[in-house]
Amino acid sequence: MIKRVIALLTDFGVEEHYNGVMKGVILKINRNALILDLVASAKSFSIIDAAFQLWASYKYFPYKTIFLVVVDPGVGTTRQPLVIKTKNYFFVGPDNGVLYPAAYEDGIESVVKITSEKVILKNRNGTFDGRDVFAPAAAYLSKGMPIEALGQYTEIKEKYVFPEPIINKYSIKATVLHVDKFGDVVLNLRKEHINDTSKKFIIKDKNVQIKATFAECVGLCMVFGSSGFYELVLNQGSASDLLKIKTGDEIEIEIV
Amino acid sequence: MIKRVIALLTDFGVEEHYNGVMKGVILKINRNALILDLVASAKSFSIIDAAFQLWASYKYFPYKTIFLVVVDPGVGTTRQPLVIKTKNYFFVGPDNGVLYPAAYEDGIESVVKITSEKVILKNRNGTFDGRDVFAPAAAYLSKGMPIEALGQYTEIKEKYVFPEPIINKYSIKATVLHVDKFGDVVLNLRKEHINDTSKKFIIKDKNVQIKATFAECVGLCMVFGSSGFYELVLNQGSASDLLKIKTGDEIEIEIV
Amino acid sequence: MIKRVIALLTDFGVEEHYNGVMKGVILKINRNALILDLVASAKSFSIIDAAFQLWASYKYFPYKTIFLVVVDPGVGTTRQPLVIKTKNYFFVGPDNGVLYPAAYEDGIESVVKITSEKVILKNRNGTFDGRDVFAPAAAYLSKGMPIEALGQYTEIKEKYVFPEPIINKYSIKATVLHVDKFGDVVLNLRKEHINDTSKKFIIKDKNVQIKATFAECVGLCMVFGSSGFYELVLNQGSASDLLKIKTGDEIEIEIV
Repeated sequence: MIKRVIALLTDFGVEEHYNGVMKGVILKINRNALILDLVASAKSFSIIDAAFQLWASYKYFPYKTIFLVVVDPGVGTTRQPLVIKTKNYFFVGPDNGVLYPAAYEDGIESVVKITSEKVILKNRNGTFDGRDVFAPAAAYLSKGMPIEALGQYTEIKEKYVFPEPIINKYSIKATVLHVDKFGDVVLNLRKEHINDTSKKFIIKDKNVQIKATFAECVGLCMVFGSSGFYELVLNQGSASDLLKIKTGDEIEIEIV
Repeated sequence: MIKRVIALLTDFGVEEHYNGVMKGVILKINRNALILDLVASAKSFSIIDAAFQLWASYKYFPYKTIFLVVVDPGVGTTRQPLVIKTKNYFFVGPDNGVLYPAAYEDGIESVVKITSEKVILKNRNGTFDGRDVFAPAAAYLSKGMPIEALGQYTEIKEKYVFPEPIINKYSIKATVLHVDKFGDVVLNLRKEHINDTSKKFIIKDKNVQIKATFAECVGLCMVFGSSGFYELVLNQGSASDLLKIKTGDEIEIEIV
Repeated sequence: MIKRVIALLTDFGVEEHYNGVMKGVILKINRNALILDLVASAKSFSIIDAAFQLWASYKYFPYKTIFLVVVDPGVGTTRQPLVIKTKNYFFVGPDNGVLYPAAYEDGIESVVKITSEKVILKNRNGTFDGRDVFAPAAAYLSKGMPIEALGQYTEIKEKYVFPEPIINKYSIKATVLHVDKFGDVVLNLRKEHINDTSKKFIIKDKNVQIKATFAECVGLCMVFGSSGFYELVLNQGSASDLLKIKTGDEIEIEIV
């Protein structure tokens, strides 16, 4: 029997037992689950960061991978705990937008609110749904339980979409989707948003040229990144530190 | 044959090869071990932090999980390297208190000091017992080797127990068991220590109310946490930073 | 069929999806690969640090383990993407020196530049060869594909070797190979480099004595470390912070 992959994306960090406990809960239900960390230490409470990282990653995983996403500032409120079945995957996590860009792109087939008493751990205390609700739901899915056995069909409430840039002849207003560990700054600019890659750009009084790779870059550059968006990079330095910009910021780019 | 789970709790961090090497040692002995990180980057050298995280986690793991705990400031001294068999689990690590609260709660059945030359790696150098002593012991356990084959029966020397709070009519003296990545502060206060949850409390001149969830909390609150202890939390902020308190601190709580 | 181990050593960190995506790519090709993190968050762009950590670790892993090493400041340049077959292992990564000390020690048998179009992912964009080139190469190796099917035989260009210390009667000039999470400083001094371990040493005006274990050390000491090199340690403190030295630094040691 082929092992089902469960990929965890959380903001719990490697200093804590929270991710480990979720894995324990899964293995108690299905010793044959193949669990791995997609992101162990995402930016705390950041919907945009988690949504971006999930979206940039999911398509590289095997068919029927279960993405268990716990970035959940609204734990304990009435936000719905969801399982989404898409064309090729399953997404488990809170209805706060983190799952939406990836699930939407892959094609949403059905959505269930996790309510089954057979799934949710006894003694659920309302502060750690990753352990008490989401991990067991992912574990039962990995055993082949049909999505509708986890609860009731529902609708997604938080349909988060990445903002679109505003593009004029002389300027672009872009949004920062992600700043990575190296200080590379992912903008919401796709291939089609920049017609002329030989142009120069100015961001916060600094010149920026488009280059094909990090290695070709001298000073500050824009590179078409691995996720399918342009990134601001400083070769072996931090573009984020230099420009003092962070995830979620809007920035003005002059075209010259 | 069912795969045995080995869960690692260490303070080695993800920047280092130390955890990875321990996994290599295990797989060289038992390719069928199912290894996962419970905590990869616990607070350096902190017995209280590791003891708390292990205790808060172990019960969520499958029957016969082997907990491999290497938080070991006394490596190279005469502290005993232990294997503890409890009612449902195995605990492998130094005799410095980290294993005790979890092992005691689950019911200690037998205790062995790891001395077998068949188990301990040749060229043990005295600074990395995680690799040379504890990892191979866990690996042989996971293959079904009986605990007594690992060494000699012994007694636990360091019987660390979480301190009990001192509770009067007008005040509580509590101890910080853990501060998590988000700045939530776990106190040694269980359900039974607080009779009247509608009371107000004052900690370092700041008002604190008890709430059911993080989301209901405005400002500083106490929430009954996922581990079974009350936690000081600041909704989407760090209670630890605000109050300037850290693991092991004693704090005075006024009841008003 | 025995599962092949793939051990990842990268500087991508646990905040990012980069390591997770590489695992997804591997599992899509070979669901039976046994993937683990050797180092998830090595020092950014540091060849010396990654080369040291790989060298210190590889020999503890099972026969035929595949080491997938992505510390790659030259991604996008013409540096070769390599697979090296040694006496007991496989090493996959960039031709920038990181693989060399371990591969050379184990005995290099053949070297291939990864060029096969069947291996490299479509849409390779030049900024993330870990995902597009190295992960699939490791995955196909783990399925038993012979090394020559991955590309063309080549020669290694970057034959990085750890520097040798310069030793006189009254002084040693040593190089820092690694500073670990605890601030322990690994020097390029082997057993044979220090004849008289009862001598005292002076580093930056501070006395240093050789001790057998961390626990015997009062103040600053040198301890013969787990990797086979001497380390500067400060018992339960950071020798690196005290001495203000970092990976790659050269230091003068007076012998008194």
